[in-house]
Amino acid sequence: MSAITEARNSFLDSIISPADLKRLSHEELNRLAHELRQETISAVNKTGGHLASNLGIVEITLALHYVFNTPEDTILWDVGHQAYIHKMLTGRRKQFSGLRQYKGLSGFINPLESNHDAFIAGHSSTSISLAVGMAIARDRLNRDNKVIALIGDGGLTGGMALEAINHLGHIQKNVIIVLNDNEMSISENLGGFSQYMKRIKETFFYKDIKKKIDEIELKLDDSHLNPRLLSMIASVKRQAKERVSSPGIVFEKLGINYTGPVDGHDVAATIEAFDSVKDRAGPQLVHLITQKGKGYKPAEEDAIKYHGISAFSLEKVEPVLPAKPKAKTYSHAFTEALIDLAEIEPNMVAITPATAEGSGLVKFGKAYPDRFFDVAICEQHAVTMAAGMAKAGLKPVVSIYSTFLQRAMDQIIHDVSILNLPVIFGIDRGGLVQDGETHQGVFDISYLRAIPNFTVLAPRDTRELRNMLYTALKNPRGPLAVRFPRDKAINADQKNPFELMEFGKWETMSEGENVILLAYGSMVKIACDALPGLKDKGIVPKVINARSCKPLDEELLDRLLKEPELRIITLEEGYKAGGFGSAVLEHASQLKFAHPERSLAPVACLGIDDHFVEHGDRRTLLDLNQLNTKQVVEQVSRYAKSTV
Amino acid sequence: MSAITEARNSFLDSIISPADLKRLSHEELNRLAHELRQETISAVNKTGGHLASNLGIVEITLALHYVFNTPEDTILWDVGHQAYIHKMLTGRRKQFSGLRQYKGLSGFINPLESNHDAFIAGHSSTSISLAVGMAIARDRLNRDNKVIALIGDGGLTGGMALEAINHLGHIQKNVIIVLNDNEMSISENLGGFSQYMKRIKETFFYKDIKKKIDEIELKLDDSHLNPRLLSMIASVKRQAKERVSSPGIVFEKLGINYTGPVDGHDVAATIEAFDSVKDRAGPQLVHLITQKGKGYKPAEEDAIKYHGISAFSLEKVEPVLPAKPKAKTYSHAFTEALIDLAEIEPNMVAITPATAEGSGLVKFGKAYPDRFFDVAICEQHAVTMAAGMAKAGLKPVVSIYSTFLQRAMDQIIHDVSILNLPVIFGIDRGGLVQDGETHQGVFDISYLRAIPNFTVLAPRDTRELRNMLYTALKNPRGPLAVRFPRDKAINADQKNPFELMEFGKWETMSEGENVILLAYGSMVKIACDALPGLKDKGIVPKVINARSCKPLDEELLDRLLKEPELRIITLEEGYKAGGFGSAVLEHASQLKFAHPERSLAPVACLGIDDHFVEHGDRRTLLDLNQLNTKQVVEQVSRYAKSTV
Repeated sequence: MSAITEARNSFLDSIISPADLKRLSHEELNRLAHELRQETISAVNKTGGHLASNLGIVEITLALHYVFNTPEDTILWDVGHQAYIHKMLTGRRKQFSGLRQYKGLSGFINPLESNHDAFIAGHSSTSISLAVGMAIARDRLNRDNKVIALIGDGGLTGGMALEAINHLGHIQKNVIIVLNDNEMSISENLGGFSQYMKRIKETFFYKDIKKKIDEIELKLDDSHLNPRLLSMIASVKRQAKERVSSPGIVFEKLGINYTGPVDGHDVAATIEAFDSVKDRAGPQLVHLITQKGKGYKPAEEDAIKYHGISAFSLEKVEPVLPAKPKAKTYSHAFTEALIDLAEIEPNMVAITPATAEGSGLVKFGKAYPDRFFDVAICEQHAVTMAAGMAKAGLKPVVSIYSTFLQRAMDQIIHDVSILNLPVIFGIDRGGLVQDGETHQGVFDISYLRAIPNFTVLAPRDTRELRNMLYTALKNPRGPLAVRFPRDKAINADQKNPFELMEFGKWETMSEGENVILLAYGSMVKIACDALPGLKDKGIVPKVINARSCKPLDEELLDRLLKEPELRIITLEEGYKAGGFGSAVLEHASQLKFAHPERSLAPVACLGIDDHFVEHGDRRTLLDLNQLNTKQVVEQVSRYAKSTV
Repeated sequence: MSAITEARNSFLDSIISPADLKRLSHEELNRLAHELRQETISAVNKTGGHLASNLGIVEITLALHYVFNTPEDTILWDVGHQAYIHKMLTGRRKQFSGLRQYKGLSGFINPLESNHDAFIAGHSSTSISLAVGMAIARDRLNRDNKVIALIGDGGLTGGMALEAINHLGHIQKNVIIVLNDNEMSISENLGGFSQYMKRIKETFFYKDIKKKIDEIELKLDDSHLNPRLLSMIASVKRQAKERVSSPGIVFEKLGINYTGPVDGHDVAATIEAFDSVKDRAGPQLVHLITQKGKGYKPAEEDAIKYHGISAFSLEKVEPVLPAKPKAKTYSHAFTEALIDLAEIEPNMVAITPATAEGSGLVKFGKAYPDRFFDVAICEQHAVTMAAGMAKAGLKPVVSIYSTFLQRAMDQIIHDVSILNLPVIFGIDRGGLVQDGETHQGVFDISYLRAIPNFTVLAPRDTRELRNMLYTALKNPRGPLAVRFPRDKAINADQKNPFELMEFGKWETMSEGENVILLAYGSMVKIACDALPGLKDKGIVPKVINARSCKPLDEELLDRLLKEPELRIITLEEGYKAGGFGSAVLEHASQLKFAHPERSLAPVACLGIDDHFVEHGDRRTLLDLNQLNTKQVVEQVSRYAKSTV
């Protein structure tokens, strides 16, 4: 904490717990809001993290803690990356220097960190379902706490949030939904619903029609009309008011009481809104309008860029870009490949569920606006829509993070794979990522390879990534996934001319003897990097780029397995359970079953063990999971030496 | 086809393709509707199948084919089990004798069967996403066909359908949504949305308010008011009409043009509605009101029971129950167990996503209405709501079909398992089911066992099912799944007193030598049944009830693996890829990696190979996948003999 920051933050220093807020005046809360913004900018400046969303929610957070009492009252933060202010107010201010670092403060909400955090959240659109469940439990267990779901307009596009609103409207539990509406999800918000909400803000029809009827009434009074007509007019007015007045008519029709819209940067108004619904029966929705990045000019102006950022120098950037130019990542390489391929394949289209920025696809959208579909936070819809497109003759590429693809598993099976439709999945952030448990991309290999008709690939570098996509588009063969890590791209500038490749053929990276390293995707480089260390220990393994987990290169694999003196070791950045190594084991078992007389080479598997992986930078997480170069050297040499 | 039926169906006989419909008068269409109902009842009488939903959609189907031209125009049937009439009209009438039989007519829509079927559908809520994808493709490829999504009010509760409506409202493509509203999904329909739709039918506010304004206007004319006032009234009327009139205001607010409600059993009115929207620009929704089971008294009166039925005798049942009393299934046993456990565990609650009937849970709902939650077709919401409940102190049991659980994979990982919450999943229809590709419950073992913290169980009989649930409730240990097949329950009447059990311990069913059969769930009985056949071939295997796929009984497994002369064979009713057998292989590989000097017993795996499994009765499907008793005998003996 620098001296300057400390001097500024006289109010903030006095806040040890949310209880301390409650004695502040509205004016003092406003000053506190200012200090919290400074502190947030300063913290993200040092460590990186989500800036714009946290700046946008300062007053809402203050008002929540002013009106409600956590942990007795339950606040469910949707997504949970906008809880920095909440963390500062609940005793975690001093820990911000370790934000998102290994063993440091999580970038998301987490009940293991504080009992003021009621649940975890990393994926969007979960808060209302959780609130419904907790409200049912509260009533059944005769408690009387408040349950509040805090959700953004982006989160509200997710199907599960809509399912939950529908159910809540039916069961009429006391749940307060706080809608933080900043007109964007992670990237630009989309959908009829958000347009409807925009119209709420633009038109206050009730005021309009009521004014006009009032005017009519005025004239009618002059005309001395009979009582029956007057009562008729009153009835029209009442009905117009009931049926027309509410800007939140869609929510009200679904059984949710609507309050708003309210300026979410006006602490007093927000507190008043919360106070007004606090003790009301039935589901309540408070609609707050906010601005992402509020109070920090560059972030206000480009909230998308400042959604999640690496550490930057505050002084230098105002108002320009993060200082350090970033290395080109696989996300960039993927987008560049799509842009190049779009020229060749006029029927190729790209789809993203609200991750256009993170996946670099914004650039594609600019190059080909009519072939780019950001469907908002709708993984299920994205995948099934792609199935419809493929059936009708387009060549859809779905760009999606591994962790979010889990939302669309049934759609992948039921809508894409049964009919063997050529939908291409560009799986970004496959493997370990800094964000922690909720964001690890470690299940995809296991569940995708269990799906019939699926081709499951991982490139070793940019060149292979490009050729995989090219081949998939040129020779469509049903559903196909290309998985890459959240890391800088290897051979990023190798914009090679596209070449067709054979998926079921693996590539020998380096010749060797006795020990065979079958490395998948990101592990090819690590296996290659392990060669010198292994050589020092007298081991010269053959390294194979096992780029296709499904189909396996059965011919090569059979040849290897049939030499019982070989030691085969698989390497992957994913769960061992059901993963690539498991596919090799299954194949070996099948071979043995078909030819029981044969002795086969044993297969050992390196990958991620059965545990949820916390947050921390990617290198640390690889270390933790015994997957760094040195650890690979140790494990391989121990195993090889003891058997050869 | 009986002589009586044929004599009745003079109109139907003249319909070879949908084109033949178009020359019929409305009166003739009504007669045809009658004949189609008779034919449907007669067909389902013989083979079993979905009755009520198909009787409810006769006129809609006729009107669709009257107005639109398949296959040029695309009709996307949501769920697709209500397409019998469509199948009869598109050349498949003669095949109804083989409905749902192996190699016979599918009970669902299927493009491999006819080019009039635009897509497959077995799971709900997919049609609008598919329509959006196809409409985008149509426009991009410069075609001009119509794209129609036919969805029920039940399907509209699914989050993906709501995502798709939201997106469609934004992109304003020409898509026609036909909403077949019969006020129930599979079971009772739920949610604020369906209540809203009920109100549409009850109140036609516009007519009301318009009438009143008309009346005012009438009086005003008499009073000779000035033109400014008159124009003001006109403006109020216009605005009232625009903003208030539409019963479909929620859809209109989301950007979907609404037409209706229309009586979906009135062919002429339905045709008129389709005609009116056919060439209109932008998304259209036609709201049709129908009655499930229409025209068949017992089905009208109990549409839920007649949703999907086994073959029954039409003559005998009118108007009573299916003649043959059914054997008690695992679904029944599961529900009975829950009812018994509810007495012991006051905090246990049960949740179902619209499968209360199929899973037998209706009985639980009657016994404990305040502890029973049917959330409609919302698998995602069901699971995350359960997570909220568990966090807040309840003991939720989610009853769900294996195939539908796929919809909630991310919720299982992100909302339940990371926090290690004790949510119990009762997985019904795990394994092979008659309904075919879309309904096979064959992925669950693979993806659940890859999730950290999860306990993955399958009982061998009713007694074990009961004890598993009891133990899970008494000694909560995080997320836990109990999987059972769609089959009659073994030892169904064994309502034993509940006993605690140890999950990580397997059970020896019969002693033997050399060969070890590790059987999971439904395969325990088949392994035991294989004993006499194997004995005839001189093989006496040890049969183990491997009731827990995760955790494995590592102690027992290690003991077995360390005897290299043993032959271990795993058996499961699920995909081999990543399944139970794979878990055993992984464990063996790990053991070898830790102790490279040891020779281990080889492990062979029986299960379902990498293909989608078609429809047909469960026995046939087991045969097809080499999993019947005789096939197990053959495979085990071939392997054992060639190696021992």
